[in-house]
Amino acid sequence: MSNFLTLNDLTIIEIKELLQDANQFSKGAQWFPAEKRYAVNLFFEPSTRTKSSFEIAERKLGIEVIPFEIDKSSLTKGESLYDTVKTFEAVGVDVAVIRHDQDGFYQELVDNLEIPLINGGDGCGHHPSQSLLDLFTIEQEFGSFENLNVAIVGDIMHSRVARSNAEVLKRLGANVMFSGPKEWFRTSYLQAGEYLEIDEVVEHADVCMFLRIQHERHHETAALSKEEYHQRYGLTEEREKRMKKDSIIMHPAPVNRNVEIADKLVECKRSRIFQQIKNGVFVRMAILKRVLSH
Amino acid sequence: MSNFLTLNDLTIIEIKELLQDANQFSKGAQWFPAEKRYAVNLFFEPSTRTKSSFEIAERKLGIEVIPFEIDKSSLTKGESLYDTVKTFEAVGVDVAVIRHDQDGFYQELVDNLEIPLINGGDGCGHHPSQSLLDLFTIEQEFGSFENLNVAIVGDIMHSRVARSNAEVLKRLGANVMFSGPKEWFRTSYLQAGEYLEIDEVVEHADVCMFLRIQHERHHETAALSKEEYHQRYGLTEEREKRMKKDSIIMHPAPVNRNVEIADKLVECKRSRIFQQIKNGVFVRMAILKRVLSH
Amino acid sequence: MSNFLTLNDLTIIEIKELLQDANQFSKGAQWFPAEKRYAVNLFFEPSTRTKSSFEIAERKLGIEVIPFEIDKSSLTKGESLYDTVKTFEAVGVDVAVIRHDQDGFYQELVDNLEIPLINGGDGCGHHPSQSLLDLFTIEQEFGSFENLNVAIVGDIMHSRVARSNAEVLKRLGANVMFSGPKEWFRTSYLQAGEYLEIDEVVEHADVCMFLRIQHERHHETAALSKEEYHQRYGLTEEREKRMKKDSIIMHPAPVNRNVEIADKLVECKRSRIFQQIKNGVFVRMAILKRVLSH
Repeated sequence: MSNFLTLNDLTIIEIKELLQDANQFSKGAQWFPAEKRYAVNLFFEPSTRTKSSFEIAERKLGIEVIPFEIDKSSLTKGESLYDTVKTFEAVGVDVAVIRHDQDGFYQELVDNLEIPLINGGDGCGHHPSQSLLDLFTIEQEFGSFENLNVAIVGDIMHSRVARSNAEVLKRLGANVMFSGPKEWFRTSYLQAGEYLEIDEVVEHADVCMFLRIQHERHHETAALSKEEYHQRYGLTEEREKRMKKDSIIMHPAPVNRNVEIADKLVECKRSRIFQQIKNGVFVRMAILKRVLSH
Repeated sequence: MSNFLTLNDLTIIEIKELLQDANQFSKGAQWFPAEKRYAVNLFFEPSTRTKSSFEIAERKLGIEVIPFEIDKSSLTKGESLYDTVKTFEAVGVDVAVIRHDQDGFYQELVDNLEIPLINGGDGCGHHPSQSLLDLFTIEQEFGSFENLNVAIVGDIMHSRVARSNAEVLKRLGANVMFSGPKEWFRTSYLQAGEYLEIDEVVEHADVCMFLRIQHERHHETAALSKEEYHQRYGLTEEREKRMKKDSIIMHPAPVNRNVEIADKLVECKRSRIFQQIKNGVFVRMAILKRVLSH
Repeated sequence: MSNFLTLNDLTIIEIKELLQDANQFSKGAQWFPAEKRYAVNLFFEPSTRTKSSFEIAERKLGIEVIPFEIDKSSLTKGESLYDTVKTFEAVGVDVAVIRHDQDGFYQELVDNLEIPLINGGDGCGHHPSQSLLDLFTIEQEFGSFENLNVAIVGDIMHSRVARSNAEVLKRLGANVMFSGPKEWFRTSYLQAGEYLEIDEVVEHADVCMFLRIQHERHHETAALSKEEYHQRYGLTEEREKRMKKDSIIMHPAPVNRNVEIADKLVECKRSRIFQQIKNGVFVRMAILKRVLSH
C-alpha cells in the first residue's frame, strides 16, 4: 500500500516514473486494475477542476466512484474525519482522495488505514497532484527541466503548490525565481530561488507560473485593489509582449481575470492554462495507477 | 458539433427526426456512441425531473456522468460559468447539459466551446427538451398535429415552454389557443393563437396543457388565493367532465395539486402527466444522440 | 413486487434466507439482475454508512445509481415525497431506497407505487437493513441465535433498531436484555426482555449492542454530561474487562467516543463495529436481490 501525500516523499526517479505514465496516458495508453475497484472523493473545500479531474481519471481506469457530500453525511452528526474514512474503508472503498482545509490532515489517518490515501490538497500545505501536472506540462513543452528558468509569481505564502513546486523543480535541475508582493515572500524561500520584480521576471523566465490570489483564504491584503495588484504584480498585456520567445504562461486556475493575468491572455498562444487542466487527468490516472498497484 | 438550444433553431424536418428517434428509443431501440463519452449536468436551478431524466438518458446510451454541485464548485470562489464549462471541456467532458436562471445564458458560451451544449432550461426563455417531450406525447396520442386543438393554460408569460410550444405547434399544423389569467397574456401571443376562457377551452381542446404557477419566479399574483385560482383558471373536476371524448391533460410538473389541476385528476385516465415524464427520457436520448453524432 | 419496510413484515424463514444470501455475498458470490436496473437513494437525513453501503451494494450488483440531492430537487419548489418518488418511477428507476425523518413515511407511498421501496430508516420507527446486518454479524460470530444473551444498551426509546431488533432476536431464540437510562425504557419493552444495570449486563451478555445517543433527535437528557453518561451507562475500559470471554461489542455507529463506548475500545479485539459496516454491504446486496427478484 502506498499513499500519495506530498511530492517531497518521492524520489526523483519516482516522480519521473509518474510523469512517464502520465505521458503514456496522454497518448491513449490504457491500464485497468485487475479487479473492480471503488474510489471515494472526500472534498471538504470547493473544487471544480481537481474533483472532476479525479472523477474522470477514476472512470477512465474503470474505477467506480462512490458519491460523498459532507453536508449530507454523518459529519453533520459530529463524526470525525478518521471515522468517516474508516467507514469508507469498511464498506469496501479501495482508495480515498481527500481535500481538507487543515494542513497535514492526513497525518492522523495514515497509520490506521489499510487503503491508500491521495492528498487532493491540504490547507496551505501541499497539493501534489497539482504540482505533478505543473511538472508534466513543463516537461511536455520543453522536454527537460535542466537549466529552465521557472518563475513562480504571486501569493507564495498561502499557495499549496508554490514552495513544493520550487523545491522539486530545483531537484530536477531548473532555476527557480519568485515574484509578487514582498509581504508574501519569506527569506526561507531563498534557498529554493531568488526574488525578482515582475518586470525582470517576464524577460528571463521560460515558464511564468502565476498563483491565484486566494480571496477565500486571507483578507489582509485588501489594501491593494484588484487593478493595483494587476498593475504591480500581474501579467499585463504590455508585460506579455516582453516575454521571451517560446516562453509559456501557467496558472492553476481558477484565474482571477485581470488580476493575476489580463483577461485577453488567459487563452492566448503562450497560455497553457487549459492544457494544464487537460494534463491533470493524465497525471491523476498515473497517481491512481501507482497507489492501486502497490 | 451541434448545440441544442431552442426548438426555433430547428427545421420541422429536424424536429420530426428527433421525434422519430425518440419513438424508436421508446420501443427499445439502442444506440451507443462509437467511443466512451462523458457528460456533465450543470443545474443552477432545482430540478428532479429534467436532471434525473438526462441522467437516465445518458446512462442508457452508455455515457458516463461526471457529478457536479454548484455549491461545492469553484463557482463559490467566483469562477464564471464560462470558465466552469471550459474546465469541463478541458478535463474531457463531451457534452454539457445546463439549466440556468439567466435567459439565453448560452449565448456567451457557444462561440468559444468545442463541445456541444444542451439547454436544460434558461430563465423564462426556453426549455427545448421539455417542448420536445410535449410534442412527442401529443404525437404518440394522436399520430399527427394537423388540425389538432391544443390549449395552453396558465402562466404563459413566465413559462419557458408556452410560447415556444405554441410557435412550433403552429408550424406543425395544430390550432393553438391560450387561457389563464389575462395579466399573463400579451397581445403579441395572438399571432400564435387566440385567447379563450377556460370553460370554452375544455370543450374544444384535444390537448389541455396546463402550466405550473411558478411561485418561485414571481410573487405579484398573490392577490389570488390558490382556491380562487383553481376555480377561475384551473381544471376542476366539474370542468374535466365537460372535456371532449379522447382529449388529454398535460402538465410539465411538478403540479400544484388543486391549483392548476384538481388533485384527483392528476392521475386520471385522461392525464398524460406521468407519461410525459416517461417520454422525457426517450426524447433526451434522441437529443444526446443528435449532438454527439454531429 | 416486494417492498422491504420492516423486519416485522418478514417470516423467520424469509429472514434466514436473507442472512444466507448475505453470507454467500460475503464469500464472493455474484448475482446480477437479468436486465440493466436503475436505483435511486433518497436520503432526507444525513448518512455516511447506510447511503454509501447501499451505493456499493447497488454497484456490486451492476445496478446504475441515479444521483439525488433534496436541496437541488423540486422538493424545494414544494413537490411532495409521493410525487418525487412517482417521478423516479416514471423516468425508469427500478428501486428506491428512502431514509426519511417521518415515522412510517412509506405508508402513503406503497399503495400507489409499482416499483419496490426499501426503507433506509424512518424517524424513530424502523431501520430494517441495519437490523439485518446486526443479525448477520451475530450469526457470523456465534452460528446461531438460540439461547444467546443479547443486551441492547442505551437510547432504546428513540432508536430505530432497538425494539425491532429485540423482537426479532426473541423470535430467533435469543434471550434479550435492556440497559441504559431508565427514562428511555418503557414497561412495554418487558415483553421482549428484562431491564438490567450495565454492570450486570457486561457479565452476562454474549453480545453488547450499544445504541447511539442521538443528540440530533432529542435534547431532553442534557441533564447528564457526556462523562456522566459514560460512567453510568457506557462501556468503560473497566467494564470491558469484566465481559465474558468471547463476548462481542456492537454499535450501529457513528459512535460517540467516550460516551457510549470508551475511545480505546472502539477498535478493540471484541469490537465488531467496523465488521458490522462491512457486513452492511452484503446484507444490502441480499435485500436488493430480494426486491428485484420478485
